[in-house]
Amino acid sequence: MRNIKLTIQYDGTNYSGWQSQRNSLAVQDVIEKAIKKVTGERLRITGAGRTDANVHAAGQVASFRTRTSLPLIKIKKGINKNLPQDVVIIRTTEVSDDFHSQFDAKTKLYRYKFYTDKPVSPFLRNFVVPVIYELDIDLMRMEAKDLLGRHDFIAFQGSNSPRKDTVRSVRRISIKKRGKIVEFDIEGDGFLYNMVRTIVGTLIDIGRGRFGKGTIKRILTTRDRRLVGWNAPAKGLCLIKVTY
Amino acid sequence: MRNIKLTIQYDGTNYSGWQSQRNSLAVQDVIEKAIKKVTGERLRITGAGRTDANVHAAGQVASFRTRTSLPLIKIKKGINKNLPQDVVIIRTTEVSDDFHSQFDAKTKLYRYKFYTDKPVSPFLRNFVVPVIYELDIDLMRMEAKDLLGRHDFIAFQGSNSPRKDTVRSVRRISIKKRGKIVEFDIEGDGFLYNMVRTIVGTLIDIGRGRFGKGTIKRILTTRDRRLVGWNAPAKGLCLIKVTY
Repeated sequence: MRNIKLTIQYDGTNYSGWQSQRNSLAVQDVIEKAIKKVTGERLRITGAGRTDANVHAAGQVASFRTRTSLPLIKIKKGINKNLPQDVVIIRTTEVSDDFHSQFDAKTKLYRYKFYTDKPVSPFLRNFVVPVIYELDIDLMRMEAKDLLGRHDFIAFQGSNSPRKDTVRSVRRISIKKRGKIVEFDIEGDGFLYNMVRTIVGTLIDIGRGRFGKGTIKRILTTRDRRLVGWNAPAKGLCLIKVTY
Repeated sequence: MRNIKLTIQYDGTNYSGWQSQRNSLAVQDVIEKAIKKVTGERLRITGAGRTDANVHAAGQVASFRTRTSLPLIKIKKGINKNLPQDVVIIRTTEVSDDFHSQFDAKTKLYRYKFYTDKPVSPFLRNFVVPVIYELDIDLMRMEAKDLLGRHDFIAFQGSNSPRKDTVRSVRRISIKKRGKIVEFDIEGDGFLYNMVRTIVGTLIDIGRGRFGKGTIKRILTTRDRRLVGWNAPAKGLCLIKVTY
């Protein structure tokens, strides 16, 4: 059996998320269907991580085992031919048999975009979250620094599908203002369910004055979920890169 | 009666075009419906020009006469509140009674985007036209120069709704390569039906070697429609600006 790694881009607007669920269309479903058209195999692919409904990806990773003898380039072209235009395989790689797209992932990089004017550009509507408040970017940057390093992020974990081990490392977080867009990059060794959305939502709450200085430190120390702010809408979020 | 000028952006993907037609949804329809919600008036708006199905706008202009006494900012906010997210009024201006958005338009600027790699980015799929050929950009630029100035563009006119006066002036045309995207800007005093799409499509045909040097001059001189090339797909086209 060969082990094939896929690097995938998608516009998540029309999907219920990455992972297959009953009674809805997931990104995973359309890729598995396309693979079946190419190799004839009915198989499951494993993603590096789930993304919620309306979350996008510029570099999601998944892998699958196959008996096909097709060259990589034909696998890529064949799958793309059978995918809807909002999902694209940008790379196929042959990986060792023990490669696991989820467990072997070392870091993930997410980007979150907010639009600070009203109305939102019709061209960006599915890729940014509108924020009509004035934001204190400097304060947000200062608070964001407190997220760096190894912490128990349990307070930022959503109530769905909780993990027991809630300690994660945030490696890098940056906040940039480009015209009307405020863009967060956050990189870490892994993220709990809803963790990116509540971290960034809480930073926005700080930036707009709803929460004060020291909020992030207090949340990490007390692990009190009631101190956490906004669960920002999914559509502004994009999984940029998974490294192994 | 007041005369109100609207500057409008839209993602044309989900519309049959700018102009109302039976049995389809036009951008004009949703704006007129939104105005009715705001002023109570059932009225028709006049656009600076039609755009085809799937063509976008960053600066379409339309105007309408109204009895409302609402301030401009409330008109804008009210209409936007009642519009779907893919159509946005970016400006409302009070104009003199004799202003006519179509007849008074002095120039229009269109932008056409092509994507020179495969597969097309899922984020750009509705805004670019895939072109898999190598393009000789220098030759395209040289040929494009022959379009400048006042010519009879009858050969570039589509067979639908023909105009009798087919003389137009092209003021500016530029071709830029930005990464995988080739971008045409074309500005003129007005364009015949399909004229932008066939001009740019013919330039692409020249760039990929299907037509040779001197093609544009020959078309303009002979006015022979059979010499015209590709009618490029609408989705890569955007009406950027109308000047008065």
